[in-house]
Amino acid sequence: MKENKETILSDNARDVQAAKKNKVKASLIDRLALNPKRIDGMITACENVAGLNDPVGEVIKSWVQNGLRISQIRVPIGAIGMVYESRPNVTLDATILALKTGNPVLLRGGSDAIYSNLSITRAIKEGLSQSGLPETAVEIIEDTDRENVREMLTANQYLSLIIPRGGAGLIKFVVENSTVPVIETGVGNCHIFVDKDANIAKSVAIIKNAKTQRPGTCNSVETLLVHEKIAPALLPSLKSVLKESNVEIRGCGKTSAIIDVKKAEEDDWREEFLDYILAVKVVKSTDEAIEHIQQYSSGHSEAILTENYFNAMRFTNALDSAAVYVNASTRYTDGEQFGFGGEIGISTQKLHARGPVGLRELTSYKYIVLGHYHVRT
Amino acid sequence: MKENKETILSDNARDVQAAKKNKVKASLIDRLALNPKRIDGMITACENVAGLNDPVGEVIKSWVQNGLRISQIRVPIGAIGMVYESRPNVTLDATILALKTGNPVLLRGGSDAIYSNLSITRAIKEGLSQSGLPETAVEIIEDTDRENVREMLTANQYLSLIIPRGGAGLIKFVVENSTVPVIETGVGNCHIFVDKDANIAKSVAIIKNAKTQRPGTCNSVETLLVHEKIAPALLPSLKSVLKESNVEIRGCGKTSAIIDVKKAEEDDWREEFLDYILAVKVVKSTDEAIEHIQQYSSGHSEAILTENYFNAMRFTNALDSAAVYVNASTRYTDGEQFGFGGEIGISTQKLHARGPVGLRELTSYKYIVLGHYHVRT
Repeated sequence: MKENKETILSDNARDVQAAKKNKVKASLIDRLALNPKRIDGMITACENVAGLNDPVGEVIKSWVQNGLRISQIRVPIGAIGMVYESRPNVTLDATILALKTGNPVLLRGGSDAIYSNLSITRAIKEGLSQSGLPETAVEIIEDTDRENVREMLTANQYLSLIIPRGGAGLIKFVVENSTVPVIETGVGNCHIFVDKDANIAKSVAIIKNAKTQRPGTCNSVETLLVHEKIAPALLPSLKSVLKESNVEIRGCGKTSAIIDVKKAEEDDWREEFLDYILAVKVVKSTDEAIEHIQQYSSGHSEAILTENYFNAMRFTNALDSAAVYVNASTRYTDGEQFGFGGEIGISTQKLHARGPVGLRELTSYKYIVLGHYHVRT
Repeated sequence: MKENKETILSDNARDVQAAKKNKVKASLIDRLALNPKRIDGMITACENVAGLNDPVGEVIKSWVQNGLRISQIRVPIGAIGMVYESRPNVTLDATILALKTGNPVLLRGGSDAIYSNLSITRAIKEGLSQSGLPETAVEIIEDTDRENVREMLTANQYLSLIIPRGGAGLIKFVVENSTVPVIETGVGNCHIFVDKDANIAKSVAIIKNAKTQRPGTCNSVETLLVHEKIAPALLPSLKSVLKESNVEIRGCGKTSAIIDVKKAEEDDWREEFLDYILAVKVVKSTDEAIEHIQQYSSGHSEAILTENYFNAMRFTNALDSAAVYVNASTRYTDGEQFGFGGEIGISTQKLHARGPVGLRELTSYKYIVLGHYHVRT
């Protein structure tokens, strides 16, 4: 990577130029564009992952049964197909985590980042070859025709796993067309519920953090639920704080009775805005908050802010999302923040991996069973 | 179940009668037929599962990161669709494991066992209702048209998981047509390799056990690999022992030079016989045995019989099957034998569950994260 910095930057510039020519919107160009600082960040990510413990070979469990020593041992999961959109850093992030866990990877990025992706892949292959590792551990599909994706999705003989990263459309396409097992990453319609027994200033700080720290990420809050008893004190303060960041509030009827905001429509409860927009609903109880979340959530991250023990228990037990928080920002749902040293995405499915997909989630296991000429009776 | 024994038996008799009328072969009728003893076995299985620890709520891991207490907690995986063939006991086995882990189940058994399956399901529903549990936790599709299976396989909104149990054709159909995540159970082309440093009498006992204890199961051995140095001493003894059970040996050229057997064809190395047939190949080394297994195995169970430490290490490290044994029969790959208290099948895939699928394998997890008004920086 270090040696190829200039080449990668100039290849990336080609992609950015093409995007500008095609009048792609600024936020997408921002996701696409690399600069020396971002490349340094990618190099640091590489070094961090290299320094992590190798999960392969780890004994997950081991016990003696029938006099046999049975051990469940972590092994690579097998070849991983990555199907992703614009952000070229996925090319590196996905590859280093896959390689660290002993899995070969087949990359298929979007056409808008193709020169960047090819350039990064060449640099990775060079690094592999310099380290005496097989260059073929990473391959990229150069032709970005969608039919190639379809072929990948049914290559059960060659791929153990497909991970899609990108918008809802891409993920839906992959889930519906893949016969290879998929880890669905993605859509985050996250909620924060402020209970009546919560500290107002600290709650406002968490909501601000969860909404504005990086609104384009899947762990940002999209809908705020507020207990009716705390709403009159909380909402005016929240409104003035969010105004500083130009956050648009869309509120229910009860919200509008307290602060002057745009009216929330039914669709707003479902929407992953990924933007400076927050839907707000006033509720009567923890149970009403839970019911709202059960109806509208995408199962990513939800938080309760409360100092009431039983409400905290009820919220964490009742909600079945990948991450359920008490008194913390939903922005923590992240491989780095969880201490995984990196992630390939956030899984919102329940099979195999849920929440941040780090190194361990890219492994499988096998049983090694040691006997003394054991015969089953 | 106890109260409905007579009804289940008479409903089962209708299925058996129909099967006989349709000239179904005896081994299949045996899988289909219930008798008082088999029903008692099913009741015992129920009681055993009821006595197992509930895995739901178990803390898998818990640690502190950024001052947050992060806990990974076991939760039900969600509604499970079972698609299966003839054996009516699957109706009960699958249901009790699913219910024990808090998962509702949708059953779709084969048309040949439909009266038995409906009868068993009615008994389960009665039991649920008597225990104050929702009867709707178990549902069975009465119409056995294949189009119903297709509808199940794409019901992503309602089902979290599909588990097929049955022949290779059924499993292939499910894997190829399901958009719901699948745990592929099944095909077992299992191998035993007898190294040169193995006890001959004990090896013969293991091979006999792995082939003849219950040849119709997926963990029975199908191909035997024998080191050329031990073959002249082992094979004659093996032949005479297997003759007692009328096992047909199909051997490679080198095998035929030692014992008089039928010639093995290329297809015999791939075949899951599920019958009193054993393919035998003489090899030069542990490495040749490993290569053969890598080429032909279905990734279920493999065993090395040896007293050589390095060959045992090499074999267990090199082979990536669900279970790899040293000096034990492949017949141990089984939920009961592993101490899981039951199983819903043996997974040969690497995603989510591998090997025996017991209670834990029917769960997912969520993260519960406890903070003190934590804001991400």
